[in-house]
Amino acid sequence: PLCLGWALGLAAASAPPNLLLLLMDDMGWGDLGAFGEPSKETPNLDQMASEGMLFLDFYTANPLCSPSRAALLTGRLPVRNGFYTTNAHARNAYTPQDIVGGIPDSELLLPELLKKAGYVNKIIGKWHLGHRPQFHPLRHGFDEWFGSPNCHFGPFDNRALPNIPVYRDWEMIGRYYEDFKIDLKTGEANLTQIYLQEALDFISKQQASQQPFFLYWAIDATHAPVYASKHFLGTSQRGLYGDAVREIDDSIGKILKHLQKLGISENTFVFFTSDNGAALISAPKQGGSNGRFLCGKQTTFEGGMREPAIAWWPGHIPAGGVSHQLGNVMDLFTTSLSLAGLQPPSDRQIDGIDLLPAILQGKLIDRPIFYYRGNEMMAARVGLYKAHYWTWSNSWEEYSKGIDFCPGQNVSGVTTHTQEEHTTLPLLFHLGRDPGEKYPLSFASDEYQRAMEQISVVVQQHKATMVPGEPQLNVCDKAVMNWSPPGCEKLGKCLKPPKSDPKKCFWPH
Amino acid sequence: PLCLGWALGLAAASAPPNLLLLLMDDMGWGDLGAFGEPSKETPNLDQMASEGMLFLDFYTANPLCSPSRAALLTGRLPVRNGFYTTNAHARNAYTPQDIVGGIPDSELLLPELLKKAGYVNKIIGKWHLGHRPQFHPLRHGFDEWFGSPNCHFGPFDNRALPNIPVYRDWEMIGRYYEDFKIDLKTGEANLTQIYLQEALDFISKQQASQQPFFLYWAIDATHAPVYASKHFLGTSQRGLYGDAVREIDDSIGKILKHLQKLGISENTFVFFTSDNGAALISAPKQGGSNGRFLCGKQTTFEGGMREPAIAWWPGHIPAGGVSHQLGNVMDLFTTSLSLAGLQPPSDRQIDGIDLLPAILQGKLIDRPIFYYRGNEMMAARVGLYKAHYWTWSNSWEEYSKGIDFCPGQNVSGVTTHTQEEHTTLPLLFHLGRDPGEKYPLSFASDEYQRAMEQISVVVQQHKATMVPGEPQLNVCDKAVMNWSPPGCEKLGKCLKPPKSDPKKCFWPH
Repeated sequence: PLCLGWALGLAAASAPPNLLLLLMDDMGWGDLGAFGEPSKETPNLDQMASEGMLFLDFYTANPLCSPSRAALLTGRLPVRNGFYTTNAHARNAYTPQDIVGGIPDSELLLPELLKKAGYVNKIIGKWHLGHRPQFHPLRHGFDEWFGSPNCHFGPFDNRALPNIPVYRDWEMIGRYYEDFKIDLKTGEANLTQIYLQEALDFISKQQASQQPFFLYWAIDATHAPVYASKHFLGTSQRGLYGDAVREIDDSIGKILKHLQKLGISENTFVFFTSDNGAALISAPKQGGSNGRFLCGKQTTFEGGMREPAIAWWPGHIPAGGVSHQLGNVMDLFTTSLSLAGLQPPSDRQIDGIDLLPAILQGKLIDRPIFYYRGNEMMAARVGLYKAHYWTWSNSWEEYSKGIDFCPGQNVSGVTTHTQEEHTTLPLLFHLGRDPGEKYPLSFASDEYQRAMEQISVVVQQHKATMVPGEPQLNVCDKAVMNWSPPGCEKLGKCLKPPKSDPKKCFWPH
Repeated sequence: PLCLGWALGLAAASAPPNLLLLLMDDMGWGDLGAFGEPSKETPNLDQMASEGMLFLDFYTANPLCSPSRAALLTGRLPVRNGFYTTNAHARNAYTPQDIVGGIPDSELLLPELLKKAGYVNKIIGKWHLGHRPQFHPLRHGFDEWFGSPNCHFGPFDNRALPNIPVYRDWEMIGRYYEDFKIDLKTGEANLTQIYLQEALDFISKQQASQQPFFLYWAIDATHAPVYASKHFLGTSQRGLYGDAVREIDDSIGKILKHLQKLGISENTFVFFTSDNGAALISAPKQGGSNGRFLCGKQTTFEGGMREPAIAWWPGHIPAGGVSHQLGNVMDLFTTSLSLAGLQPPSDRQIDGIDLLPAILQGKLIDRPIFYYRGNEMMAARVGLYKAHYWTWSNSWEEYSKGIDFCPGQNVSGVTTHTQEEHTTLPLLFHLGRDPGEKYPLSFASDEYQRAMEQISVVVQQHKATMVPGEPQLNVCDKAVMNWSPPGCEKLGKCLKPPKSDPKKCFWPH
């Protein structure tokens, strides 16, 4: 395929641009002022949007964190790269501390490929692609790491269960809650400030070194337990969650200004998005908003998978752009390669597309969006139509415990608590007239017939050529938790693992 | 009270500004790109917002058209100005063709008062304050009228029931569906183009005359049956409703450009808002969106009463402003008077406040919002807290017929189908954390206690001083319909009214 990054007039002689990926955790489509959040508290992100391009139809590859991040870094659907489970039908799975699997060596990650073009790659924040030694990000293309391998649930007592470690490069330097405090009563933690400083320092260092960089800023302040530093506590209309968003907004403003101050903003491609929809189960105090979309994280409704997204690259991306290009986090893989002047791997199916024609030339590329839960394709979007082949919010058992992924929302026959199969007669929505997936089209209508004819072809082709990877998220074992990460000896922070007892992981959703 | 329009530095020698009120019909908070509509198809309104001030917490005085418009033009709650019913508890009422009542002579309307400052006043579009001769807008301060007295339901067969007339000034010049066509199959009608031309012509004429004007542009294309002219049909992602919005957006762009071309934009205060929330009952094909807010038109949830609102006045209002001032359509009465250098009437309670300190100086004025249905105060907002004293979406009887004001939304104990009294222990929401009114605060929490103490004082004071006006919307009679409006003889369009048979109007909601 044509290498668009260069074809689009980036001078072949000049160095490829730096790549800065700002990946939010559980932030929803509706959390930014630019996307209609009613308290409009994100002036820096709103300005980023007004100076760059707003994507209104941008998706994640999975409504849960680990598979989404694996898809982003491999350009492939989780069902291909192994970040899924077959333990039960249509279940979301991720990488808790007791997960045995992780990113397979056979997968080619974006930083691995970028090295060929001379990039220095750093991940700041959450890795989430497996925490055992063979899955370490520095084994998969990153040169530097500051952050954690898993979600910051907890605190555990650090005896029965370990708190997650914070790594600097190969070794741990402490643990969340112990060395990197989060006050669960007040929500105070200065971690976003630390992650911000890491980013600023790395950017300064790289600018001095003249090597292009890829910085993956994968912070976690908006994932429950949500936190903000003292300066931001109580400053939002939206409570603690809003405080966290305001601190992130402020930090991103500082990062962009830093690029400008260093004179490299025109040579740094910045993309902002999130890993999945807002966790409505934690809202309103610990979770965000998916705007008018249906349900949230864990579901294949729009609220679970449509993401806020902004591209920023002064001097290249026209200011104030708005794109309806159907985009996906997997496109960041292909687009980044294109910007680096690299080809995507040709020995495997890549699901991400190069968005540069959409970003730089305002083109609209026809491509579908697939919505998966585990290895089940639950839904597909083609153009403005979305067909649900399976619907499920969560089980009655979970729901009866108060686990609700669609609080205040109930669309009869759509937000179901049993898995409903619609493969012979999919539930069809027109996302232009009905972005909230509230009004299924009549099966008898001409519009239904016309739309389904088109979608069926796309779905059949997708399924016919689908070769699932080896599922990595089937087996859990307490013995593999972060008991004794590398470096724990120096800190006196090693814990004794229990005896190995591998089991099928239980994935309730 | 201080006359703020002049006090804020408008030179006393210069003429007061023109006033242009763009009032939408059933348009919702979530229908504009600037407010987060996902297809972002309102470039002109979005630009108006970026050049002016966006109000994010702006309300109507009633979730239904007639009372809302009566409140706007009188600066008073419908329960004061008579635009309510006592036929049953907590019912919305309006002015269908068989309504006997209308705006009482004792009410002082904005155009009546503006005349004292030399304004020429025109209404283009829907009047809706009573269609019998004594209620005619030219008897209540307007100098010119082009439009209709009622909603454009229909078509009726024009024998058993008349179509609504279109007036030019004192006389009818035709009827909707007959002389002013709406093709109910395709949705085609060129009425917005006609209303646009009327506005442009009036503005040109007034500019030449050097007299200040008040233009009330109350168009109806977004009220079901929704319509758009041929050029706009099929151009929106959102279907016919979106086509209508796009045509309105285009028209408003043309009006603002016209002001600029005539060199009077800096001397014309423009305000854009809507009469009530989007009619979700008609969505998605004939109704709009209230974004993330709960329910729609007819209800006292945020979706029924929070409105899109933009103030525009180049050279006076700082560009790109965002205000969290709690505003209300009634404030347009008081604010307009202030701009004209007039005092509001002192012989009656005025509910509207002067928004100029908020608009010109970015101040936040502490004031409550009351949510009424009929003569029942259903809810009150103070700061970010909203207390529901009564909740009701609609009756089981209506709901079972498919009338749903909250499609896809169901908040247990909140969106109820029986009228639920909460006067001793109001349902409390924090609209910052929870704009969607999904998570009532715990009655036992300190936060609940603190907030309710504050709200109770405000509500008690409001109720203690409330003197309801004579209800105007209790009696209906087919004989008063628009059978033979003035001017019908010349057109041969008089119809014979039936015998008078006044009855209590039936208000189901």
